[in-house]
Amino acid sequence: MKKIGIGLLGLGTVGTGVYKLLHMRADDMEHTVGAKLEIRKILVHNINKKRENVDSSLLTDDWKEMIHDDEIQIIVEVMGGMEPARTIILEALKAGKNVVSANKDLIAEDGRILLDTAQENGRDFLFEAAVAGGIPIIRPLKQCLAGNEISNVMGIVNGTTNYILTRMFEDGMEFGDALGKAQELGYAEADPTSDIEGLDAARKVAIMASIAFHSRVVFSDVYTQGITKITARDIAYAKDFGLVIKLLGVAKNTEDGIEAGVYPMMIGKDHPLASVRDSFNAVFIHGDAVDDAMFYGRGAGEMPTASAVVGDVIDAARDIQHNCTARINCTCYRDLPIKSWGDVRNKFFIRMQVKNQPGVLAAIAQVFGEHKVSIERVVQDHAEPESAELVIVTELVKEKYMNRALDELKSMDRIYEISSVIREYAE
Amino acid sequence: MKKIGIGLLGLGTVGTGVYKLLHMRADDMEHTVGAKLEIRKILVHNINKKRENVDSSLLTDDWKEMIHDDEIQIIVEVMGGMEPARTIILEALKAGKNVVSANKDLIAEDGRILLDTAQENGRDFLFEAAVAGGIPIIRPLKQCLAGNEISNVMGIVNGTTNYILTRMFEDGMEFGDALGKAQELGYAEADPTSDIEGLDAARKVAIMASIAFHSRVVFSDVYTQGITKITARDIAYAKDFGLVIKLLGVAKNTEDGIEAGVYPMMIGKDHPLASVRDSFNAVFIHGDAVDDAMFYGRGAGEMPTASAVVGDVIDAARDIQHNCTARINCTCYRDLPIKSWGDVRNKFFIRMQVKNQPGVLAAIAQVFGEHKVSIERVVQDHAEPESAELVIVTELVKEKYMNRALDELKSMDRIYEISSVIREYAE
Repeated sequence: MKKIGIGLLGLGTVGTGVYKLLHMRADDMEHTVGAKLEIRKILVHNINKKRENVDSSLLTDDWKEMIHDDEIQIIVEVMGGMEPARTIILEALKAGKNVVSANKDLIAEDGRILLDTAQENGRDFLFEAAVAGGIPIIRPLKQCLAGNEISNVMGIVNGTTNYILTRMFEDGMEFGDALGKAQELGYAEADPTSDIEGLDAARKVAIMASIAFHSRVVFSDVYTQGITKITARDIAYAKDFGLVIKLLGVAKNTEDGIEAGVYPMMIGKDHPLASVRDSFNAVFIHGDAVDDAMFYGRGAGEMPTASAVVGDVIDAARDIQHNCTARINCTCYRDLPIKSWGDVRNKFFIRMQVKNQPGVLAAIAQVFGEHKVSIERVVQDHAEPESAELVIVTELVKEKYMNRALDELKSMDRIYEISSVIREYAE
Repeated sequence: MKKIGIGLLGLGTVGTGVYKLLHMRADDMEHTVGAKLEIRKILVHNINKKRENVDSSLLTDDWKEMIHDDEIQIIVEVMGGMEPARTIILEALKAGKNVVSANKDLIAEDGRILLDTAQENGRDFLFEAAVAGGIPIIRPLKQCLAGNEISNVMGIVNGTTNYILTRMFEDGMEFGDALGKAQELGYAEADPTSDIEGLDAARKVAIMASIAFHSRVVFSDVYTQGITKITARDIAYAKDFGLVIKLLGVAKNTEDGIEAGVYPMMIGKDHPLASVRDSFNAVFIHGDAVDDAMFYGRGAGEMPTASAVVGDVIDAARDIQHNCTARINCTCYRDLPIKSWGDVRNKFFIRMQVKNQPGVLAAIAQVFGEHKVSIERVVQDHAEPESAELVIVTELVKEKYMNRALDELKSMDRIYEISSVIREYAE
């Protein structure tokens, strides 16, 4: 039977999963692809490191060996990071290899050049695993939903933060304790910055928005705010209001430009995203024909991510078999503006500690009014002789007006502290 | 620009949606496909019937006109039913056309010959719309998840019954009233048999199981039970137990064969399928690599179904452009047995009215014991001088043993009535 050679860049968690899964499915490939998929080389840092269950004769520390191996038709990049991944992928494409990558950092930054290079060389560049791990989302957007004008993509695309927020919501934990628990269970890394500050999610939002709206969105276009300031008290208010707090990646295609952001948001408990618990991910989309749809599953982990990578490898192999690589590459045929974040309209939950005396609410309401912020609800709680906690939920307002109002409030001596400012979902 | 001609079979709800959507996206096709998609002919029963916003010069009542039109490369079958759809599709494939179909009745029965004929003629036969309407599920299973051994597919794949059960659960309605409400709102047809008896869902299960397990499952292989016997009282018990009742299509690939059935099931309220409300659909799958995943959205309706059809049309057009039609057709390369339903193991909720006297429970327990049925829980409620309501939840037991036990219980004079027998989800 015909063989299709594979070069594997990286043998970390995902690389090991891909190695295992390709071996587990070896006998099926005759039927699925009509060829044997054979890993011919694996790029690692240290070829002398002992690895269980891996054929050590495949290991190399020289990526150029793969480029020069004519039997290798598919390169699987699961090493991560910007360089040397970027250089190797570009060289591989130029050498006529098809490339499958799980590298969200790289694609959120350099997706255009990677896809263009694939196209110029008539090869596939596939990256289902770069967004939401094992959950099919890239291919559904590019193919199944290709008849839609997608207006909205909203997702829980970071498992670490969803686990933390689930513990806070279900067990009443504070952020620090929930983070500790996540680290203990291996859901969060020793340095959790990229997850808890929303950077990881922002990269996925950039990639999804680019595909959904057919217009390039890069990492730096995405407004980003993490979950470190969310407190158990905010969660308690959310519960009272029938809401949950989720770290959402949100991208909208509006008449005056693309909005893209990652931030904690209060969302109704009946919304499909609200019931996505623990480390699960989900992506919710709205298209003009399909209406609402959601894709749910494991957004990370060795085998779920390998599932997405191997799905892409099989697709590339089928394209090779049918001589139609580069069948679908870049779908960004528009050049839409990115909306300035200050012009994005959101609804806000604001929790503050104020002086407990008559006239305070009136003064606060006046500041909001002067800055075009309409108030939907006011809840006063926790009144003590000197201070009270005031929660104000606004109607939709431009971020820049909200910021100006908050700046003015911060300077008022009857306001001790603005404790929380959290966005709330509004249609 | 190059044109790809389309022949549309049927101009009912879905056909009209497809017609509209292809016009709405006409300008995008240059970028998406690299060709103009042009509807050249539309098959209807009555070409003289006045139709708003449809170019009447395209109408024909002779399907052979399409077959003989060399400019038509894609036939879209949205007429439904077995014949003449079957004949037309087969003739179209033999004439070298690619075919997109939304016809679950036909595919659940004759999927093999349709796919084989497509393959023999080197053409696409695509049918994303046949299962769960707008929700991407066929392509994710065939491509994104192709690296998985799928063990389990479980779905809410009928919007009518999900709407009815949602009303019963949320508003305490009885079945008849909820059905009336569904009919009033256009969610249920005047003759709702196919929906409420689970036949529609069974066809979708047959198609999904065939693809997920790579082995042909047809409509008659699927055990089917509808929701007409579910009462508000059963729902109340489910709520008490922290469960909801859903009409689920369930397919499992087990060591001793494929299990496929459609039946109402009690399922934990934290399960992702439990929060699928109203007329929404969702398909939950378990794969050995991806773990759990779920696909959620609109399972029916003019534009959601058109979304899936047009997605397939775009895919076929891309295949035409790249000269790779028949890239992925039949994936049933196994020939697994279908398990006899009596050998399928399920957990049961049984509600019965019994004589209110000592020794009744002992007698019932003995009957269960004799038939290998283990009891997990017993709840007695609603005791009156003469009668009491008894609810028994069993552990997993083979269907045939359960049936034998029930037959014997029915003959006991201390049991007035077996009111409900509903399966309960168990891992």
